[in-house]
Amino acid sequence: MARYDFASDNTAPVAPEAMAALMEANGAGFTSGYGTDEVSRVAADAIRGWLDADAEVRFVASGTAANAISLATICQPFEAVLAHEHAHVCTDETGAPGFFGHGLGLIGLAGASGRIDPAGLVPPLARPDQPHWQAPAALSLTQSTEYGTVYSAEALQALIGPVRARGYKVHLDGARLANAVAAGFDPKSLAGLGVDILVIGGTKAGMPPTEAIVLFDRDLTRRFDARLKQSGQLPSKGRYYSAPFIGMLRDEAMIRHAAHANAMARRLAALMPFPLVHPVEVNGVFVQMDDAALKRLQDAGWFVYRFIDGSVRFMCSWATTPQAVDDLGATLKALA
Amino acid sequence: MARYDFASDNTAPVAPEAMAALMEANGAGFTSGYGTDEVSRVAADAIRGWLDADAEVRFVASGTAANAISLATICQPFEAVLAHEHAHVCTDETGAPGFFGHGLGLIGLAGASGRIDPAGLVPPLARPDQPHWQAPAALSLTQSTEYGTVYSAEALQALIGPVRARGYKVHLDGARLANAVAAGFDPKSLAGLGVDILVIGGTKAGMPPTEAIVLFDRDLTRRFDARLKQSGQLPSKGRYYSAPFIGMLRDEAMIRHAAHANAMARRLAALMPFPLVHPVEVNGVFVQMDDAALKRLQDAGWFVYRFIDGSVRFMCSWATTPQAVDDLGATLKALA
Amino acid sequence: MARYDFASDNTAPVAPEAMAALMEANGAGFTSGYGTDEVSRVAADAIRGWLDADAEVRFVASGTAANAISLATICQPFEAVLAHEHAHVCTDETGAPGFFGHGLGLIGLAGASGRIDPAGLVPPLARPDQPHWQAPAALSLTQSTEYGTVYSAEALQALIGPVRARGYKVHLDGARLANAVAAGFDPKSLAGLGVDILVIGGTKAGMPPTEAIVLFDRDLTRRFDARLKQSGQLPSKGRYYSAPFIGMLRDEAMIRHAAHANAMARRLAALMPFPLVHPVEVNGVFVQMDDAALKRLQDAGWFVYRFIDGSVRFMCSWATTPQAVDDLGATLKALA
Amino acid sequence: MARYDFASDNTAPVAPEAMAALMEANGAGFTSGYGTDEVSRVAADAIRGWLDADAEVRFVASGTAANAISLATICQPFEAVLAHEHAHVCTDETGAPGFFGHGLGLIGLAGASGRIDPAGLVPPLARPDQPHWQAPAALSLTQSTEYGTVYSAEALQALIGPVRARGYKVHLDGARLANAVAAGFDPKSLAGLGVDILVIGGTKAGMPPTEAIVLFDRDLTRRFDARLKQSGQLPSKGRYYSAPFIGMLRDEAMIRHAAHANAMARRLAALMPFPLVHPVEVNGVFVQMDDAALKRLQDAGWFVYRFIDGSVRFMCSWATTPQAVDDLGATLKALA
Repeated sequence: MARYDFASDNTAPVAPEAMAALMEANGAGFTSGYGTDEVSRVAADAIRGWLDADAEVRFVASGTAANAISLATICQPFEAVLAHEHAHVCTDETGAPGFFGHGLGLIGLAGASGRIDPAGLVPPLARPDQPHWQAPAALSLTQSTEYGTVYSAEALQALIGPVRARGYKVHLDGARLANAVAAGFDPKSLAGLGVDILVIGGTKAGMPPTEAIVLFDRDLTRRFDARLKQSGQLPSKGRYYSAPFIGMLRDEAMIRHAAHANAMARRLAALMPFPLVHPVEVNGVFVQMDDAALKRLQDAGWFVYRFIDGSVRFMCSWATTPQAVDDLGATLKALA
Repeated sequence: MARYDFASDNTAPVAPEAMAALMEANGAGFTSGYGTDEVSRVAADAIRGWLDADAEVRFVASGTAANAISLATICQPFEAVLAHEHAHVCTDETGAPGFFGHGLGLIGLAGASGRIDPAGLVPPLARPDQPHWQAPAALSLTQSTEYGTVYSAEALQALIGPVRARGYKVHLDGARLANAVAAGFDPKSLAGLGVDILVIGGTKAGMPPTEAIVLFDRDLTRRFDARLKQSGQLPSKGRYYSAPFIGMLRDEAMIRHAAHANAMARRLAALMPFPLVHPVEVNGVFVQMDDAALKRLQDAGWFVYRFIDGSVRFMCSWATTPQAVDDLGATLKALA
Repeated sequence: MARYDFASDNTAPVAPEAMAALMEANGAGFTSGYGTDEVSRVAADAIRGWLDADAEVRFVASGTAANAISLATICQPFEAVLAHEHAHVCTDETGAPGFFGHGLGLIGLAGASGRIDPAGLVPPLARPDQPHWQAPAALSLTQSTEYGTVYSAEALQALIGPVRARGYKVHLDGARLANAVAAGFDPKSLAGLGVDILVIGGTKAGMPPTEAIVLFDRDLTRRFDARLKQSGQLPSKGRYYSAPFIGMLRDEAMIRHAAHANAMARRLAALMPFPLVHPVEVNGVFVQMDDAALKRLQDAGWFVYRFIDGSVRFMCSWATTPQAVDDLGATLKALA
Repeated sequence: MARYDFASDNTAPVAPEAMAALMEANGAGFTSGYGTDEVSRVAADAIRGWLDADAEVRFVASGTAANAISLATICQPFEAVLAHEHAHVCTDETGAPGFFGHGLGLIGLAGASGRIDPAGLVPPLARPDQPHWQAPAALSLTQSTEYGTVYSAEALQALIGPVRARGYKVHLDGARLANAVAAGFDPKSLAGLGVDILVIGGTKAGMPPTEAIVLFDRDLTRRFDARLKQSGQLPSKGRYYSAPFIGMLRDEAMIRHAAHANAMARRLAALMPFPLVHPVEVNGVFVQMDDAALKRLQDAGWFVYRFIDGSVRFMCSWATTPQAVDDLGATLKALA
């Protein structure tokens, strides 16, 4: 049977702190629905504290939906979102932004190792408005990136600045924000950097399916719950999406787990006999590996696959064990 | 602090069998994602067994989304779905069918206590096709209904027959299917009755947020996972949506819990000093109550509200206690 | 062969003034595209003059699209538009508002002879915002109405006032605005009344297919041409949609023709042996007629049909001749 | 004042044959609406004859809408259309396919001078179906292409064959089909080649705004008029869109005019002092020209612009005069 330890960070089970919080929330008896319950209030407070921001917070089931709804909130159908050409919203969501956004466009930008090159922003921002194309209305960033790298606050500022100067909005896909924070990025900087809408990934951070949508820009909150409901993302039993955040933000459990995932990736990188394709800054290791080697690896029982840039990706999570890393490393060494 | 015991069947916590199955699934270590895992396979088998049908099964997070995606699967934007005028899809989903279905129409049909009157089907089915209106393409049924009643198999047949004779499709919203089954409806009859796509509610049956979409009509499965993914309903950690069904279908736990909810509704009905508006066949009690009485009831701490037909609704669930029913009954008696 | 003289006001050919303007525009040689040409500028000026308003004006091909795009501009998918339950947008556009507006809702309001009863506005405007329904964001009015009646400025004010007081927007479907103006309504009152977006019907007024969208609220114009383009309503050869308005606004030709249509309706009403169902204020005559009589009328070669309220509708246009009215009157008399 | 002779083929006025047919249709008195009239029937017959195919034909106002509706007919939102990366549907319709198609994807393929390289089809057709991307469902071709080249029947077959072998559908954007036919392409070959849905451009061929949608695959016609109506493309006064085709198909006027446009392009190419970037096979001339030269040309009064591939485009039409070509040639020579 195949081993999924390194296939993705969503193949892992739920961390004990999240599961305990879920059990605790379950013990609360009857509660009001649709996110108006006390558990959800406490979880939202915890997130506001973690971000040091007076923002609106909602808890939803799906990262794909959370991103797509966010983009639909800040971009009209006849406009477009600027994003890294390999961002999840561009390549791995089956067109969800266009579905939720009624045809909104995505303008893919280049940049090494998943970080948008600021020079690439210039042409679409400079292009005169005309009715025959979908002009930009927003920027979507990913922190940490699809290729396991982290933007510095300065790098984010260099991208956000010119976008906000045009009056456009900023979305940040934080499916792996915890890993970036564990690597040194300050979550309290996001509000000041000018992010308008943020998705904090719970799922990849070791929770059961849950994501937090954070609205720094309170102008976006008007009838936002109706938007969520219509989009199938206003859960009646909201506490089961908010509770895990309580458990994971208590005593920095989420960051501790993310730090472990990052450390496992470094450990794997150190053992890796194949050339690294991207810097290992968080929990992913991307290597150059030919088809024959990949097949032998898969035949040895390790399910991993070729990523969009042609490299083979290994993801670590809160649940990755040093033993698993070492086992994988030994297999890799044998077939390299 | 308000008591939500009777506000809805989604204000209840999760039943122990569902929670235990969740914990068990969590113990399975790393698994493949997006519903391809072993837990999801076992859960799908359990549902196929329960329905005695060789159907495709998917597990999603939201009933609103499950219904809307189902309708979008069987109805084009320029067509319409026939449904009871007070069905959840018509009145309580913030237009989700039109959102997921890109403007598809809903044709509301009348009928006492939530059951569609077969006579009402005749005019829209007889109306000649012409391009200026959204002609019917599908029928959406609700079992048990919004008003706590149950269709007999014969009643369903009377509605489904003429619809299928036109080549149209049939959706069944089973958010409270468990309650109908506990009241005597045979779930194994659904395939033979001609339902094409079914949503089995987990949430209201006592699970954490989860719903099963059952595709009896396998022609509808082509690229259905891509449809789910684009709609934000292909969970990466699928086992957390499928596992609860395993626990709740084992030893008929789901039906036992639903039978309890139904019994609690009957107990409440027996104590009720206000006139019943609909027959109490499952877990809801709908009564005629003026604004002053409702306000006093709310002031006494019981959160319930006026439903779309003007009655006041009391819902029971797996977690409703006889004591709570009796407490409520006493309060009602005092203010009647 | 059937006669279509009274089937609709869009069965008529194009009035000579419109056709002459089309020919003239065609003689202008090469021009710039997409509504940036001189003909379109002159036509927009003519409309601004006619309305006495400094508004943005666009020319599009379709009234259905013009209405749907207008509604999508002022209403989000998770919101709804208030409109008369028999308004064209509700009953005769195959769900176009929901299609262009990505699922936006329509709240049908009652009112005699196509005029919304102001009392009907109160409940939806008073209903508290909550996420489970599509709350109102806009009001759509029709002038003259589907049943051939005209709102007074005071009547419009009574509807627009409370809507604007909530911060909601106002759309006016003026497919037959010319007929209302010919009946005494002042087009220069629209801006002051608080209409945000207006569609002026060219087609039913005797032009080839063309409609003008007038944006009184200039905040709505941001990237509006991109919206039109994406919606298939930014014609490259724009002059063929704008020119007819030049011809028809010159020397009040449009109003003169509309006055003729109105007069023909009055002439028909005077001859009518069947009971009138609505006041004849503009160019339509609606009568009570049983199926047998309707069939005899159709067998006699006059194509008319039963309208949504059950009455039989006779529409007059700029091209309706007194002789045709008298012929029809004689036929009706014979079969009454 | 700027001269638009070469800016596009839609800056030209309407050809006399089209205008005469429009006048003639206008003389037909009252007719039935929505494309059911006699003029539209005759025009559809003329198109069927021209294509030698028993196809369904509809007349609509907009090429952008015609393409987008066609693609929405053959591709689900969670699927994608294969098209040349510089095809009009990809680059010049403001995302209309995604808007009408509710988020459907476009997969841009490379190929010299606007013709898709068949090798580029292989990877997307070979890629295994999986739910995380929008898999192909259709191919969109453009004949003649955006860069003024023409596919041979064999070249089309090489593209259509593998697509149909997978069961996918084929759309052909014939905005400039007339020019291709004038260059030798046989319109009667389209049905046999396996095109399912075709848009024949009227506008660029010298008509007032009108396009014909041809449904070779009659399975696609079910409720197609309702689809058109909802999309704002079922004109009530249909004859004004169909009549021009009658005039232009009579005595091959359309092809004669297209041949003239093509000849004018060849004449311009012969005079051109700048390097040609694409073969001149129909009515466009694309040249390499630096910004300074382009500016001087524009300053001299000729409005042309840089196209998506970086070349400067000159389009000829039925109305382009040899004198204009020679004038332009002289200007170009002076500034080269």
